[in-house]
Amino acid sequence: MSSVPLKDQLDIVIPTIRDLGFLEQWRPFFQPYHLIIIQDGDPTRKISVPEGFDYELYTRTDIERILGDKAWAISFKDSACRCFGFMVSKKRYIYTIDDDCFVAKNPSGDDINVLEQHIKNMLSPSTPFFFNTLYDPYREGTDFVRGYPFSLRDGVPTALSHGLWLNIPDYDAPTQMVKPRERNTRYVDCVMTVPKNTLFPMCGMNLCFDRDLIGPALYFGLMGEGQPIGRYDDMWAGWCTKVICDHLGLGCKTGLPYVWHSKASNPFVNLRKEYKGIFWQEEMIPFFQNLTLNKETTDVCELYLEMAEKVRSGLGHIDPYFTKLADGMIAWIHGWRQLNPATKA
Amino acid sequence: MSSVPLKDQLDIVIPTIRDLGFLEQWRPFFQPYHLIIIQDGDPTRKISVPEGFDYELYTRTDIERILGDKAWAISFKDSACRCFGFMVSKKRYIYTIDDDCFVAKNPSGDDINVLEQHIKNMLSPSTPFFFNTLYDPYREGTDFVRGYPFSLRDGVPTALSHGLWLNIPDYDAPTQMVKPRERNTRYVDCVMTVPKNTLFPMCGMNLCFDRDLIGPALYFGLMGEGQPIGRYDDMWAGWCTKVICDHLGLGCKTGLPYVWHSKASNPFVNLRKEYKGIFWQEEMIPFFQNLTLNKETTDVCELYLEMAEKVRSGLGHIDPYFTKLADGMIAWIHGWRQLNPATKA
Repeated sequence: MSSVPLKDQLDIVIPTIRDLGFLEQWRPFFQPYHLIIIQDGDPTRKISVPEGFDYELYTRTDIERILGDKAWAISFKDSACRCFGFMVSKKRYIYTIDDDCFVAKNPSGDDINVLEQHIKNMLSPSTPFFFNTLYDPYREGTDFVRGYPFSLRDGVPTALSHGLWLNIPDYDAPTQMVKPRERNTRYVDCVMTVPKNTLFPMCGMNLCFDRDLIGPALYFGLMGEGQPIGRYDDMWAGWCTKVICDHLGLGCKTGLPYVWHSKASNPFVNLRKEYKGIFWQEEMIPFFQNLTLNKETTDVCELYLEMAEKVRSGLGHIDPYFTKLADGMIAWIHGWRQLNPATKA
Repeated sequence: MSSVPLKDQLDIVIPTIRDLGFLEQWRPFFQPYHLIIIQDGDPTRKISVPEGFDYELYTRTDIERILGDKAWAISFKDSACRCFGFMVSKKRYIYTIDDDCFVAKNPSGDDINVLEQHIKNMLSPSTPFFFNTLYDPYREGTDFVRGYPFSLRDGVPTALSHGLWLNIPDYDAPTQMVKPRERNTRYVDCVMTVPKNTLFPMCGMNLCFDRDLIGPALYFGLMGEGQPIGRYDDMWAGWCTKVICDHLGLGCKTGLPYVWHSKASNPFVNLRKEYKGIFWQEEMIPFFQNLTLNKETTDVCELYLEMAEKVRSGLGHIDPYFTKLADGMIAWIHGWRQLNPATKA
């Protein structure tokens, strides 16, 4: 596989509030691709992007101009705003990365080409219906083990590839506070499919997905300014996406590739953002674990709209926030359809 | 943790038809433990065991003497006979290993202490209800990631630890034939819980479990002489064990530790043994995926007897073998109770 595969089929989406100097380190890997930069916060600020990158940049002003009365559904002052980039892209694949993530090294000391690995993950099938003890059976040097049903060895299409992080692990505020010095130094040379009907905590730091297959499910919710919670944007998108993937028979992989996560966010700030979510996730997760969707529906936008109504009826009792979130989910789909008129139904 | 933990609480069960020279390499790790050797095949053959090991050895003659009219339920001329050792042990933990498995090395070149790792796996909880993207959250240097419900962080007791194999992977005959030169060289530094309601292909080569929690589920079925299939003994035990663990809220882990699997079994012989199983597993696996047990039952023997009747009614149409297997499952439990009278009702 070439080191710049699918050049014309993948956009890189980066949410940021600052100059994008971090791209210098990524230049050999990202320069061939088109970047979609979502500038959060003050839209009048001029963000600098290193020379030579091909990019489009959207500020809050742009989002409001483009989405009009649906712009409120895109979070402000929170990296959840990245999902606007998923909506405006016209490519099949999206890779999204945080601007405090850098190039990691594998145990041999070589720079890890994250896109190459994500694309390998995406282009090989997933195996959600039965566990393979040697992990992703489509990787070189491995296969399905004895006892794996032959009827399942075709696998299913992969909709999402969730990459991990060396150095600063993706911990919640309480864990950050309890283990301020913990660093992830373990390189686990593994990609695997998250089994069907198993939810996972999807982190948005280093994430690739197939817009055509699952794009409309990747709404990052209502976070940041004016909202009662933060840091649940990617979790929310992950639960919704996994439930829809399970419904449609699509796969979500996790594991390689790693990025180098350079700095922990402030645990005190995080605690304030997460506080309500820590309680709410105890109800949200069982809600998603038990959520079933209309068997006949196969269109992701339609499934997502059905899910929005189930959020309203099933989580609305927790807090008025969930009613607003259900409205946001609907506005998101309206925006998606506006910008992607070819989307079915 | 000491390198000889739980010395008085763990037996090592080894099925074999030959002299146990392979124990020389294991001496530093296994010598502190008691071995239960199940000598398969000709009971008059004298098997040599290296000096200095503490062991008891059972031949077919012993099995028949001890189990009487239930002895037929223990396979003959097949390593499935190992489960007799699980029955006669009086220890809490069993480790079982094949006699063509040797000490593997980790990437630093150190000998892997399989028992130390298995015991770490067993003594730390499992997390079957939600996926942790940094794998076993109880390992040193890692934890639960952001978005993992706090109510689930206690985990559940671990009933089983499934270790893997470097060098010769555990492939079925068709895969052995197609990839005769494939070797597993990838050391994946990972332990993880197999999620609830996900079945996995459990291999008996390098396996540890808690007899008290789950022992009676570890019947290795009817294989070998007089039976229409072989090489499904551990798979069968794995499906039954996982379903009962899911029912009881117990965990099964897989991953580390690795053994060095020295030689591939003959793929032509294997194909003859597996032939029917390859077809049957296409029905057996969905059967186990959909199997539910009486919610009120918590005793493993009782659950296993219930499962035997479901095997009879649910798989009997495939082949008369499954009726015999259901009878074998019942005879196994009767034998278990005979030898373990303290086992609950």
